Formats: sequence, structure tokens, C-alpha cells
Amino acid sequence: MSLVSKAAVLDGIEGQFHIREYEVPEPKQGEFILRTEYAGVCGTDVHMYYGHLNTVEYPIVMGHEFCGKIEKLGSVDIVDSNGQQVKEGDRVVIVPGVSCGECYYCKIAKTPTRCSHVQAYGFLPNREPHLLSGGFSQYVHIKYENTSFFKTELEPHIAVLTEPLSICVHGFQRAGGVRFGSTVLVQGTGAIGLGAIAFAKRSGAAKVIAVGGPKRRLELAKQLGADVVIDIDDVKDPQERIKLVKSETKGGRGPDMVVECAGFPGAVPEGLSYLRDSAEYIELGHFTDVGGVEINPHWHILRNNANIRGVWGSDVEHMEMTLSIIEQLELPYDQLVTHKLPLNRIGDAIQAMSKKGYSLDGKEEVIKIAIDPWQALANQ
Amino acid sequence: MSLVSKAAVLDGIEGQFHIREYEVPEPKQGEFILRTEYAGVCGTDVHMYYGHLNTVEYPIVMGHEFCGKIEKLGSVDIVDSNGQQVKEGDRVVIVPGVSCGECYYCKIAKTPTRCSHVQAYGFLPNREPHLLSGGFSQYVHIKYENTSFFKTELEPHIAVLTEPLSICVHGFQRAGGVRFGSTVLVQGTGAIGLGAIAFAKRSGAAKVIAVGGPKRRLELAKQLGADVVIDIDDVKDPQERIKLVKSETKGGRGPDMVVECAGFPGAVPEGLSYLRDSAEYIELGHFTDVGGVEINPHWHILRNNANIRGVWGSDVEHMEMTLSIIEQLELPYDQLVTHKLPLNRIGDAIQAMSKKGYSLDGKEEVIKIAIDPWQALANQ
Amino acid sequence: MSLVSKAAVLDGIEGQFHIREYEVPEPKQGEFILRTEYAGVCGTDVHMYYGHLNTVEYPIVMGHEFCGKIEKLGSVDIVDSNGQQVKEGDRVVIVPGVSCGECYYCKIAKTPTRCSHVQAYGFLPNREPHLLSGGFSQYVHIKYENTSFFKTELEPHIAVLTEPLSICVHGFQRAGGVRFGSTVLVQGTGAIGLGAIAFAKRSGAAKVIAVGGPKRRLELAKQLGADVVIDIDDVKDPQERIKLVKSETKGGRGPDMVVECAGFPGAVPEGLSYLRDSAEYIELGHFTDVGGVEINPHWHILRNNANIRGVWGSDVEHMEMTLSIIEQLELPYDQLVTHKLPLNRIGDAIQAMSKKGYSLDGKEEVIKIAIDPWQALANQ
Amino acid sequence: MSLVSKAAVLDGIEGQFHIREYEVPEPKQGEFILRTEYAGVCGTDVHMYYGHLNTVEYPIVMGHEFCGKIEKLGSVDIVDSNGQQVKEGDRVVIVPGVSCGECYYCKIAKTPTRCSHVQAYGFLPNREPHLLSGGFSQYVHIKYENTSFFKTELEPHIAVLTEPLSICVHGFQRAGGVRFGSTVLVQGTGAIGLGAIAFAKRSGAAKVIAVGGPKRRLELAKQLGADVVIDIDDVKDPQERIKLVKSETKGGRGPDMVVECAGFPGAVPEGLSYLRDSAEYIELGHFTDVGGVEINPHWHILRNNANIRGVWGSDVEHMEMTLSIIEQLELPYDQLVTHKLPLNRIGDAIQAMSKKGYSLDGKEEVIKIAIDPWQALANQ
Repeated sequence: MSLVSKAAVLDGIEGQFHIREYEVPEPKQGEFILRTEYAGVCGTDVHMYYGHLNTVEYPIVMGHEFCGKIEKLGSVDIVDSNGQQVKEGDRVVIVPGVSCGECYYCKIAKTPTRCSHVQAYGFLPNREPHLLSGGFSQYVHIKYENTSFFKTELEPHIAVLTEPLSICVHGFQRAGGVRFGSTVLVQGTGAIGLGAIAFAKRSGAAKVIAVGGPKRRLELAKQLGADVVIDIDDVKDPQERIKLVKSETKGGRGPDMVVECAGFPGAVPEGLSYLRDSAEYIELGHFTDVGGVEINPHWHILRNNANIRGVWGSDVEHMEMTLSIIEQLELPYDQLVTHKLPLNRIGDAIQAMSKKGYSLDGKEEVIKIAIDPWQALANQ
Repeated sequence: MSLVSKAAVLDGIEGQFHIREYEVPEPKQGEFILRTEYAGVCGTDVHMYYGHLNTVEYPIVMGHEFCGKIEKLGSVDIVDSNGQQVKEGDRVVIVPGVSCGECYYCKIAKTPTRCSHVQAYGFLPNREPHLLSGGFSQYVHIKYENTSFFKTELEPHIAVLTEPLSICVHGFQRAGGVRFGSTVLVQGTGAIGLGAIAFAKRSGAAKVIAVGGPKRRLELAKQLGADVVIDIDDVKDPQERIKLVKSETKGGRGPDMVVECAGFPGAVPEGLSYLRDSAEYIELGHFTDVGGVEINPHWHILRNNANIRGVWGSDVEHMEMTLSIIEQLELPYDQLVTHKLPLNRIGDAIQAMSKKGYSLDGKEEVIKIAIDPWQALANQ
Repeated sequence: MSLVSKAAVLDGIEGQFHIREYEVPEPKQGEFILRTEYAGVCGTDVHMYYGHLNTVEYPIVMGHEFCGKIEKLGSVDIVDSNGQQVKEGDRVVIVPGVSCGECYYCKIAKTPTRCSHVQAYGFLPNREPHLLSGGFSQYVHIKYENTSFFKTELEPHIAVLTEPLSICVHGFQRAGGVRFGSTVLVQGTGAIGLGAIAFAKRSGAAKVIAVGGPKRRLELAKQLGADVVIDIDDVKDPQERIKLVKSETKGGRGPDMVVECAGFPGAVPEGLSYLRDSAEYIELGHFTDVGGVEINPHWHILRNNANIRGVWGSDVEHMEMTLSIIEQLELPYDQLVTHKLPLNRIGDAIQAMSKKGYSLDGKEEVIKIAIDPWQALANQ
Repeated sequence: MSLVSKAAVLDGIEGQFHIREYEVPEPKQGEFILRTEYAGVCGTDVHMYYGHLNTVEYPIVMGHEFCGKIEKLGSVDIVDSNGQQVKEGDRVVIVPGVSCGECYYCKIAKTPTRCSHVQAYGFLPNREPHLLSGGFSQYVHIKYENTSFFKTELEPHIAVLTEPLSICVHGFQRAGGVRFGSTVLVQGTGAIGLGAIAFAKRSGAAKVIAVGGPKRRLELAKQLGADVVIDIDDVKDPQERIKLVKSETKGGRGPDMVVECAGFPGAVPEGLSYLRDSAEYIELGHFTDVGGVEINPHWHILRNNANIRGVWGSDVEHMEMTLSIIEQLELPYDQLVTHKLPLNRIGDAIQAMSKKGYSLDGKEEVIKIAIDPWQALANQ
């Protein structure tokens, strides 16, 4: 008897999410069917809802941060990206981006996040051959050749964080890693900013400064390792913040690394002004175009002998690194997922993450919302 | 009998150069007196003339790109930075920046160009204890502890290029070197841009594209290794230039490295738009503040997975690397010095390099002007 | 009418090469048939002949350094690894190693030469499904998924060098590139050693020292850029060679990089003794096990603050870098191929490269032997 | 009234330690007198006792790992290497190696641990001008130009660990840092091995394996972060250890990094055999010559695509990085100092660390012995 999967289908830009049912196909050789446990709602999903990604076609089943259990294997020889054999019932985390493995960026530049033919679960139109390819669905058909995934014994509400946290791991790697004993400043305290805080400390930073807000996120920042938090609601003037940041660093030189996870154009010149000379600036926040900003090439780049890295996504390597760390359960990663919602509340999640200032149902503070496609649909 | 040195003293911002005479002191233990052969006129000298460097005090004897012969040693045990013993009569190239060797940037960050207490020949006020510390003088008193210099057998009109050319060597080093077989684009065809062209090819680039002008410089660019030259007078529209550049690269992806040596703010977003994804942008041009420019953090930095390096000056290491290469005399480096002028024509040199569009005496095309302090003064 | 291909089949360890004929199959979707122009004989082929590679199964058609023209495309959409569309008649260079693109080493460590499931043209048993998979054959069936190749307009006797030369490019890359202005010493003057000499200079070395022999190879070393050659027949004592090498370097410190391409165990401690402190040692020579050697961890590794890299093979990236450079035709690469032989002289080639001290037909000095499978068979 | 300092003077190879008294001089401009709190006994001190360092002259006051309080400043303008002003009474950690700041290795290679003219506190003959230059003394005259030191508020029994722990920080830095989420294996569980264990985890390792002994050290290894400990007394056969190590790593591939802190020649081939392909081997253990060992260049270096780093000492940078971390007091660093002894028990300390198998007074397990020169002399 074949399975049926409920999925949340977005019908267009700023459209409706419809809960539809699809028959789950039989997986072929090398493929498998995943029974989704959680799928995180990402800032990129918000941008797709508002039509900011011009490559997206609608209708679409979004959801690229997801994990679950293998429901049915198409063949018995399937191994994860660590070479471990998997079996039905195993929990796995899927790497959403499927790079072609053949193009210049995959084979020669070895930066597969810029693959010329990348496709990704959660970014494909909801029609054949892409049905059941997004995480906002009870089952996902894992079928694209070169799909990477990792077996894990993490609980699913932590495993689901692997993808968003891997972005900061890519960022640190691009900067040659976090200098041991250094001071790292993170701009922005959303899910990626909080991950950067946690991992900066875990990668060797002696001191971590978080600039963000609101209060509840700054509380969690402290639990994840931030030594100093600066609330942008308390210190509204960027010049004041620059002075304050400098005063929190050795010799007043400024942080050794600044990680931009705010995604606000003005954060860039401000963050470059925090930096000590000869240091690292990691740009993670502007994954979509939210406008330009004036910088001064002399003061912001050349005179401070700066290194700036733009970091696009993450690849299998960064997922593996991330998972290996969170599997140690050393930090309260589980506090990052603040809400678990059914399929028919994705629209609410998107509103919370855009127009409603990270509040949901009027009272709660949203960090990461995970969709549980098996949760009973909400009355609406 | 003591020596007397003529020197060109600039009396203030946009002031006069006065030829003054100074008694040359006896060098002490570890010091020496250099008989200057050539001192190059740098874009930074132009900026100092116009008062764009707020740390400079006047009157001043400028000149930080200089070489000459050791006239008198203060002690017999003096060695150059390669550990070679020197004697009177030896030709040496002076490293103008004297870093303290003690501060955070010298000892810990190991980026001495950002030394907290740097002083530099050619940047000090013309009074005790700094008399005879600039290259626009017949003799220079090499006296600051930690001064670095290199013995060389190069002819002086080539040796004088070591310092300006070392800037691009620092730039390439910061980017992890030039990728073997890559395509490098250089924006700007002044002395540093031309050096970047020559050294990109010598460091392993397969193809070098120069964007600059005017014609005569582009001719020299070709002699130094440029495979393609784009005259900004011929292709005036930046969007056209972007298309043209892309079309000159493999798969239309864009260059693997872009080196900004133009020093014009608009060059930065244009250059970032040339770049292939996951590539290197080296900012060498904005050694002074000539204004801001709008960039888009998404398109110019993050989406193309870019690496951007601001490169401040050069240190002993880069001077050593540069000298080792130009000593091989493989390229027509001597064509970079287009004019040799006496001390009382520094003002003309500065005019040529600022208001007069690189023309001197109405007809010639200026690249690098070298001051020969022993040349008979011009009638004026 | 279907094509027939002559191929040289080695029947076992130290066995015979038989010239057999095979029907050339129709290429399927994504595949093509290559008409081989040249296939180089590599030291590894010699080792396979003598049974030193325990993974090899016989009978076998060897030949992994090869280029030719596309005889027949299996589909019209085939592009090379630079994304360039190819058509029948185009000349291409094949990357022999076909990494799986899926395993830990391919996706996570990003060192595909250590792929867990690598297969390679020229290393597979001569039976289905591997018929016509080695370069010592008139036609090669290019069929393994993930096969990389590059279109080129180089003449074939130069194009055939891409693979062996790419080994040194991998070596330099692993060491962070050749330091600009540095002194590089190459141990061994076979095909790879000569390539290392040429490319060290082209990558930015100021001075290249070659230690090897015999005379004719040292002559070619000079033409490719060696500034100093040391003939091991003239200077037989390693201690003498160490002194001599040191005397050829600045301050007697030793070379900044030593590249081991001799493949003789004693070369390793000798080469480590050449090195200046804090420098780079690249081990390229021991691609097979030719025995052990005593080293002293204190003197050879720790005290000189050395960096040592073992370099296994090359991947698509290094082939692309190499091809981009040799396509510039700046050096007499064509002198590396000293002999072009028919299929039934592979045995002679192997004898020349092992027992006969690089002499063929009693008089000539062998560097690289290329097999031309279309040349008339020799009378034997 | 001038101060008098007791110091422990070693009179020759395998000689006696005599407690002598010296008048403490007045510090000059830029100098200061340190009142020693602790001076650690290092394996190098043991080697100097036995005459294994051929550059050492006797009699000597050893002790290069030391901290204390500033007793008297020679001038008021003295700042530490972070640019912080110091005053009398401040606790400081001294960087023992004083590099010249001028030579090729200081300025050009930027690896000051290989400085051509290095001198170091604790390594100089006990005669003018070097009196009171070793840590095994109540006062040390901090007088060499370019001496680096750091102010700290750490307790002295932790501050004294900065120097030995900084060696592993140098090691990790040389390998490009510890890969985030990786598995690191440390060979040897002495003070440096234990530091490597602690810092590997703190630098981003997910899993740390320690191979060493005896039991008490392995217990401390666990407290400092080792996830797996392998007692070499339990698993005596290296081949067994290799199997066991592999079985403790993902996919049986072996550790991503192996740090050799055992200083036993056989550890080198064994450790290289643990390593996964394309990984990092850091050689910290052989700071003196304890003999050679056979390696196989094919299997140990080339075939596994290995990177091997010899790491000589540490410099100011590594001391700063180390201090910044241990100041966070996140781990039980204080358990590393197992014994605090008076000046006249240095001989006992050396016996414990050489002939007596790390036992002192018949019962205790020695890790790091710190000399407290103010402790009442033991009856002997």
C-alpha cells in the first residue's frame, strides 16, 4: 500500500500555503524516501515568499533545513557522506544543495556552493520531476544524484539546526579559522548570529562580543558563549557602538574578527569600523539584495589592511563539521528552536520573521521555527 | 672635512620646495650615511604636497623610494637584511618604513606595515633629530634603529623601483599568491599597476588583462606581460567594460583575481563586478582618502563568494621578494622610470602627477619620475 | 561500419605486450570515443609492469597520460571541464583519474586524488566493462561518469604532457605556492623534475637549482629555467652536495623550497638537509614503495621548523592550471618528449626507463617516451 | 638598600646545583627586575643537565618558563606586548626567547623562533653580562632589548604554564588550525601533550584521542578533554594501537590531525600510520636529538598525501594566544603543576623527569614541577 504525503504548497509570491496530498513514489536504485521530522523556516524562505529570489518558480514546496528518518530505501547499498551504511529507520540530516560535481566551481575552484548547475531541495517548482522535493512535507523523495546526507543520533530538534549553523562554519573556514585566543564580534543575533557566537567560542575565541537584540536573544547569546552583549536598542548610535566595542578589546584595537549576520546594509561600514587592523570581516548576512551602502575604500578596506570574505551558503564539508560538533551536545543548542508548528502555520512563521518583529501569537520571541509536518493542523 | 648635502625642503601644504644645504653628521655605531642616487616621486608625495596626510608636519624633506651608495659607515659590523656585510661604496636600497619591532602589530599580528610606532624615511619633519631623513637630498642619514636595507648590484634606476613594486607583492601574498594558470586583471596602469601586471605574470598567471590608459602606458603594459589591454578612453561605459572583461576570460566567468591600482572609488564596484565567483580582489589603489562609493553587500561581496584584501604598504619581506626578482632583469623594468629630474624640479613632478595628467614639459608621458639630487639644478 | 582499435595488452607481471584488436563500441549518452594521438609512458607504468602496484589486475591496457581527438560523441550536449561545448574532431586531454564525487575525500576533505572509489583510465583490467580504457590503444572509450577532460589547441606532443606536469602543480599548491623571489631546488631531473624546474620559475621563483643527471637532462633543465645544475655524477658525496647547495643560496641559508622528484629514499634526508629553516619540502618522487630510509626527527623535521608535504597524484584542478600555462608555449616543453614509438615498442620503453638507464636503441637519452598507436608497428 | 637574590647554579654537565647569592643590580631605562614566583622545569632543562644541547655553556642558571611580579622598573614608560602600561607589583609572564628583530628569520621569514641571533632567559652562561638571567632565581634581571612579556591577573601557578602550553598553539597554527569538528590524536601525555589535548578541544576538535600513560596522566587527559585514552602499557604493540586508533575514528579513516608530543623516535612512523589521508602531522616532541628512525617515504608521506610540520619553540604571538585562553580558566589547568619545590630540589626534579619515570619522593606522579625560589630550602 503506497504512502500519501501532506505538503504545504505556496502558490505564488505573497500567496497562500495550501495543504495538498501526494502519493509517495517508490524510491529507485540509490534513492530513498525520508519521513520528515522537522524542517526549519529560514530567512531565505521569507525572501522566497516575498519574491526576492528571481530564480524561484511557483507553486513551490519550500523547506531546505530538514531531517527525518529513512522510510524506505530504493536499494540496500546506500551510504551516507561519511561512508556509513544506512538502513530504514535511521535518522539522517539532508544537505539541501546538490552540486553537480562536474563544473568549474565543483571540480576546479572547489567551492561547490557556487556550482553552475546546483539544485536544492526546497527550491524547486512543485511539479514533476520535482514533486516532494521540499522539507515542508511529510515525506521527501531523496532522489537527486549526488545528494549528500549524514546519519546521526542527535534528537531531531537539534539535528534540524545543522544546515543553518553550517553557514558560520563556512565563514570561519574562509577566514582561515578563528584565531586561538582572539576576540570575535558577531553582528546580529538571529539563528546564524547565535550559531556564530557559539562556534566562535568553540573554535578558539577567548572572548565573544554580540551586537544585536532584542533582550531574549541576547540572553541566549550569553548562554551560548557571548562574554559581552550590546543591545542596539540601548546603544542606538553607531559611533557610540564603535567606541564601546573598541573599549571591550585588548589595547582598544578592536576585534580580531567581525562576523556580519545582521543583513542590514549599514552593518557593513559599521562592522568594518569595529575591526582591528589586519583582521577578518566575514559577510554572512546579505544572502539577498536588501540594498546598497556607501563605504570608503581607504578607511574601510585599505588603511586597516582588512580581509573581507563574502560567504555564500555551505557545502557538505561544512555540514559534516557542524554535525560533528553539535553531536557533542556541549551547548544548549536546543534553545535555538523556539517554536514547532504544523504545516498550515508556515504563513504565520513567515509573518513572524518579517512584519511582526519575531513575535508569534502576540507574545513569544521567535528564534528558529521548525515545522513538524506530522503535527495536527491548526484550526484557522 | 665634513660633507654638505643639498636637500629639497617643502615649506608647507601646496608650498614651495627650497634647496637648502646641511652639514652631514658623522654616523654613529650602527648608522651610515647614504649618498642618494635616485629617489622616486610617489603618489603619496603628491598627497603630502596637497596636505592629504594628516600626520605629516612641515617643513619636510620627502622621498621614501630611494637607493644609493654607502658613503660612510658608523661601524664596521653593519649587515643588510639578508645578513650580508656591507662596506663603503656598496649600493643599497633602503626600506623606508621602520617598524618598532615591539608592538602588537610587529610581534603578534606580524603585519608590521600597521606598526603602532612606525616612522619612515621621507615622512618626518625637517628638524632635529630628523634632519637628512628623506630621499630628496644628496645624502641621507640612515640612523633609525631597525632600519632595513638590502645590498644590490642592480643599476640605480632599477633599484629605485623596489619599494613601489613591493606593494603589489604584498598584495599578491595577502591573497595567497597568484593562482598558477589563472587570469589576473589589473585596474590602473600607473607605476604600481604596471608592476602588478609584470609580477602577476611572473607569479604564475597565464593571462593578464590591463584596464587603464593612456596609450603609452598600455604599450608598456604589453611589454611587461599584459595579454589584453582595455583603454578606458576607448570603452567609457563601465557596463561595457564588465562585458568585455568577462568575454576575455574562460567560460566568461571573469578573472580569478582583480588588483585595484586605480585609486578611483568607482573602480571598486566595477572591479568586484569583473570577478568570477570565489575569487580574489586586492585593493591597492586607495592609499589616501579620495571619497566613498556605494557597493551592494549582496551582489558585490556575498553572492560572488568574494575575498577582498585591503593592502597597506609593504614591509621588509616584500622588499626582499621584489628585489630578488627584479635583480634577474627579465623584463624591461627600466622603462618604468621615464624621467630623471634635479632637486628643484620636484614641484614640476608633482604637478605632472596631479593637475597635468602625467605630462611633463608639454610632451612626455610620465610613469615614474626619479629625482637625481646630483643633477645640476634647472634654470627657473 | 564500426571501428576497430589496436591496443597493447600486457599479459602479466614482467609479461608480454600483445597487440590485439577490439571492436569500438557505440558511445552512449554522455560518452565519447577518443582517437588517441599520444599516450606517455610513465614511471608508474614501469612499476605496474614489474608488479609493484598491488591493486592492478592483468591483463591490462596501460596508458594514463593521453590526448587525442574526439572521434564520436554519444550525445551532443557534452562539455569539457571548463564548460566549453565540444564537437567531433576537437582535441582533448583526458584527466585519467575519475574520482567518485561522493566520498569523504571528494566532498569533505576536497582532496579527490585520495578518493575512496577512484578508478582511472590506464589502470583497469582489460575485460568488460573496462575494454578500451587505457591510452595504449588507437581508440579509448571515454565512459566513466565524472570523467574530466579539457579541449585544447595545443599540438598533441605537448598536450600529452599535461598530466605528468600537473603533479608538480599539485605539489606547489600544497605548499601554498612558490614564494615570489625565492630559491627552489629540485631533486631529480626526470619528466616531473624538469616540469618542477620550469614551473617553479614560472610561479615566481627567482632562482632554481637542479640536482640530478645525466648531462643531457641537465642541459634541458637549463633551457627550462634552472640557474644552477649540480650533476650527481660530478658531486657524488651527499655532504658535499649539501655544502654546495647552501653556498648557492642567499646567506648560505639553503633553498626556500625543495621538491623531491628523484624517488630514491636517500634523497629525502639529503633534501631535508638542504632546506633553510621554516621552509617547504615537497615529496613527489616516491609514488611507489622503493624502501625505507632513516631520518632524524629532531634535525630533519623539528629543529629546522620544516613543512613537508606528501603529494599523491593530481586532480582536475591541477590539470586545468597546467594546461592554461603550457598553452602559452613560453618554454621548450616539446623537448620533453624525446621519443615517439609504436604500440609494439612499449616493452622497449619500459626497459629504457628501468634497466637501461634511460637509453633507447643504444644511443639516445630518454626523457618522456610517447606512444603513437597509429605509428606503423616496428619490425621485431 | 640593594636586593640580594638566591639562584641555583648548575656547574656543568651532570653536575651539581649550587645555591649562590647575587646582588641585584639597578634596572636601567627600559629594564626591570622581576621577583620570580614560579619557574617550571622543562624537558629541555633535563637535556641541558645531561649536556644534550651543544650551544649551552656552564655554569648556568636555567629556568625559562617563569612568571613573577615586577619588583622595580628602570623607567616609567614600560609597556607589555599588548601595549599595556605596567607598574611595580604587576604580575607578568616573560617570553623567554628574545629574538633580534633584525635578521632574515625575524623580518622576512617571520618565524622568529628560528632567529639567527636569538638569546633566551634560562639558556645563558652565569657570568656578566648574563647574571640573573634564568628563572631558577629569586630575582631575574629583565634587560635584553626586545624582551616580550605580558601582564596578567592569573594566579602564578597557572601563569607559569603559558610558555610550555604555547608550543602546541604554535603547532596548531602551523597546521592552519584545528579543523572544526575534527578528531585529533595526541601522542604523549606530558605537559605539552596534555596542553595539546586541552587546546585541540578548545580550538574546535570534536573528539580527542590520547595515546600515552601512565594512568594518572590519562586521568588528567580526560579532565582536559580527551574522549578516548589509550594506555601504551595496556596496548603494547604499535600495530594494535594503529588498529585501535583507526577504529575510534569516523569511517575508520584515522584522525584528522596527529600531534607528536612523545619525543620517542618510533612515535613518528607510528603516528604517521594513524593519520587519515590528506591530514596533518605536527612534530613537537623531538626538541632534542634522541636518535633516528626509519620511515618509508611512499607509505608514510606521499601515499597518504600527508602534511608534516616540525615546530620549533613558540614566539610572542603564541604566548599571547595561549595566555588569552588560559585566563578564561575554563579547564583545570592548575592540575598540571603537580609539585612546587625549592631551589635546592631542582636536581631531584631532573631525576624525576629522566631516570625515575616521573616519580618524586617515591610516590607521586610528576607532570609539571614548578620551582618556587622563595620556598625554604629542603634539608638534604
